[in-house]
Amino acid sequence: MKAYLISIGDELMIGQTINTNAAFIASKLNDVQIEISKTTMVGDNEADILFEFKNAYDSSDLIIVTGGLGPTHDDITRKCVVDFFETELVRDEGVLEDVRNLFKNRGREITKINEDQSLVPKIATVIRNSKGTAPGTWIAKDGKIFISMPGVPYEMEGMMEDFVLPELKSKYNLDKQSRIIVNFLTTGIPESILYERLGDLDQLLQGNKLAFLPNQFGVKMRLTVLGETHEAAQNKLSEIEQKIRSLVGRYIYGKGDLKIEGVIARLLIDRGLKIATAESCTGGLLANRFTNINGSSNFFEKGMVTYSNAAKVEDLSVSEDLIQEKGAVSLEVARQMAEGIKAVSGVDIGIGVTGIMGPTGGTENKPVGLVYIGLCDEKVCTAKEFRFGDDRLLNKDRATQAAIEMLRRHLLGIPYDE
Amino acid sequence: MKAYLISIGDELMIGQTINTNAAFIASKLNDVQIEISKTTMVGDNEADILFEFKNAYDSSDLIIVTGGLGPTHDDITRKCVVDFFETELVRDEGVLEDVRNLFKNRGREITKINEDQSLVPKIATVIRNSKGTAPGTWIAKDGKIFISMPGVPYEMEGMMEDFVLPELKSKYNLDKQSRIIVNFLTTGIPESILYERLGDLDQLLQGNKLAFLPNQFGVKMRLTVLGETHEAAQNKLSEIEQKIRSLVGRYIYGKGDLKIEGVIARLLIDRGLKIATAESCTGGLLANRFTNINGSSNFFEKGMVTYSNAAKVEDLSVSEDLIQEKGAVSLEVARQMAEGIKAVSGVDIGIGVTGIMGPTGGTENKPVGLVYIGLCDEKVCTAKEFRFGDDRLLNKDRATQAAIEMLRRHLLGIPYDE
Repeated sequence: MKAYLISIGDELMIGQTINTNAAFIASKLNDVQIEISKTTMVGDNEADILFEFKNAYDSSDLIIVTGGLGPTHDDITRKCVVDFFETELVRDEGVLEDVRNLFKNRGREITKINEDQSLVPKIATVIRNSKGTAPGTWIAKDGKIFISMPGVPYEMEGMMEDFVLPELKSKYNLDKQSRIIVNFLTTGIPESILYERLGDLDQLLQGNKLAFLPNQFGVKMRLTVLGETHEAAQNKLSEIEQKIRSLVGRYIYGKGDLKIEGVIARLLIDRGLKIATAESCTGGLLANRFTNINGSSNFFEKGMVTYSNAAKVEDLSVSEDLIQEKGAVSLEVARQMAEGIKAVSGVDIGIGVTGIMGPTGGTENKPVGLVYIGLCDEKVCTAKEFRFGDDRLLNKDRATQAAIEMLRRHLLGIPYDE
Repeated sequence: MKAYLISIGDELMIGQTINTNAAFIASKLNDVQIEISKTTMVGDNEADILFEFKNAYDSSDLIIVTGGLGPTHDDITRKCVVDFFETELVRDEGVLEDVRNLFKNRGREITKINEDQSLVPKIATVIRNSKGTAPGTWIAKDGKIFISMPGVPYEMEGMMEDFVLPELKSKYNLDKQSRIIVNFLTTGIPESILYERLGDLDQLLQGNKLAFLPNQFGVKMRLTVLGETHEAAQNKLSEIEQKIRSLVGRYIYGKGDLKIEGVIARLLIDRGLKIATAESCTGGLLANRFTNINGSSNFFEKGMVTYSNAAKVEDLSVSEDLIQEKGAVSLEVARQMAEGIKAVSGVDIGIGVTGIMGPTGGTENKPVGLVYIGLCDEKVCTAKEFRFGDDRLLNKDRATQAAIEMLRRHLLGIPYDE
């Protein structure tokens, strides 16, 4: 089974929108071993769209189209689908009700152009949209499947998960796998050192593949294992995983799509611990990461963003003399911030972050990218220095990640060895 | 001049990495009117890469390759470039120094494989990497330009801005434009209502193009104006912009790539005002948005993430009886949170956000997506109800955006009309 992806929208052709949809769909199809033969992007132009539809239909079994289904004049995909399949538009009462409910729930008046989104090609099965107004459509004809979905990522993703993937799996029995892909998620170690510690990769991998994918949060190692059967691949995977963990296990916080804050949440909830954060340079991003977890009120008690020295002194009882002597960006202040937020919020663990995120504000002794993170519980009160780069938003990401990793290591008793 | 983009990496082929690089480069080339004839993605496979290089070289004047330049075994782009141009690798002392400095600044030991990143194709001009270790290369041959850059987005972006674009502009005199693209950034109004308010688009646009690009932060309207000369296009643009602003101007917070928090920052700093935030459901994201602005300490005084009712009562003096009576998620509590954070931090404006972000925690009367935002200054103390969707992270984005928009409207005296 060969798939062909078509992403529609002028915004893609001039780089104004990033084509996340192609990656999302590729990833989901890859999981069920459907190979993508081609991915193309076209603008909101009838002739170009119809040309792509024809190419795709001639060469592939599964065609997935995203974009161009909005209510406004520049969206013409639905019209193209109707023309291509020589069918007509009919109103779908279920969709009409969905659209009306969505507007009602948001307390807004519905408009005519929104109601008209319930018009769908007659030969299509409707894919309902739980997150927006434009329905998707599934057309099965000539032994091929032609799917059209909105370009708004979360709407398309909802449709893929709720309808398209289950439908494809059940129709084509796609769950048998002899190739397994696993991601090992690391943080706090550069790609080159991770690579070195793994030693002789040929020996480790025995013909399987390991890729290193770094970003500001850490390095993802993607292991691809092939086996003649799913079981054989699974056995090989276990063997390689064991070796990888013995070499760099302390840096691996999880596998798959896990978020490190999710790992922390489980650790804290299991132990009945509560945390609080005092942030200067990360400005609320650390609290935000923790509260991205559903149920975060079970472990996250309070966050403070104390930007000014006065706030550090008043709210966290950081010593004014200490700030004078060592500076607000110092190991000692980070420690006192952690201690202060722990005391003031009555939690088990306090975390304090102070640093210089840039682009301005650095000095020779304290350059942009310098960050101190403090962590205190009942027994220890410690702080650690980190040096990041010169990009403000990347530095906020890196410092936040480092603080979460510091908490993970603290909870698991993993020392820093560098 | 025709450009051909090649993105290299297995992670792209299975959808594990989103190809943001193609969009970034397309956008930058579009700005200087270089048309992209084709964008392709290939895996880390020598034969595929060389095949793409040949295709690109045969059909285009400008070839831009990203990815596959890392220090580890799976990155083979540099080797392919050397083979393709039948050249050899030589050490570049400048790059070696850059790499050594980067490791020194981060306080890390350098490894042999990092040092070897200073080996570059002999016929290439080096594009220095200010954010990482792998250099880019620029090869001018046969009247064509062949550029190779790392796949790590911020490294590639730095090289594009600092070297590639200035170089292309100066070599090809690319600044003359007869097409102008402007983005009008709106928030707080759905796409369909925005569309309706603009009335007869044919009359408004007179043959020019307007696209509506919605996401959870708002709707971007992209206006593309064509003129025989740059001046003619500019005049048309002014005329259409004036009409658009007269119809939906109150929803437009800026143009281009502006962030709404940047607009707020300027307004606050100009007026010498300071703000503080009290967040429940947005969990620090609002503070984070404000502190993303360099120099945010000039207007952002303090943020509190008060998740528990106890914290709302203790830290913000929200009335315990009121929470009992109306619930923590209520118009009244949002208002008291705003009032409380204003008082406790001594700022000019306090903002309070409380709501139910989901996926769990909703009730029939207070469903997931219900958010109240309070705003108090010396004169007014108000709160407003919002209803969003059922996705936790999208709801955090939407609620944060609504709070910032509420502040913008407050500062500019723009009423809510719905």
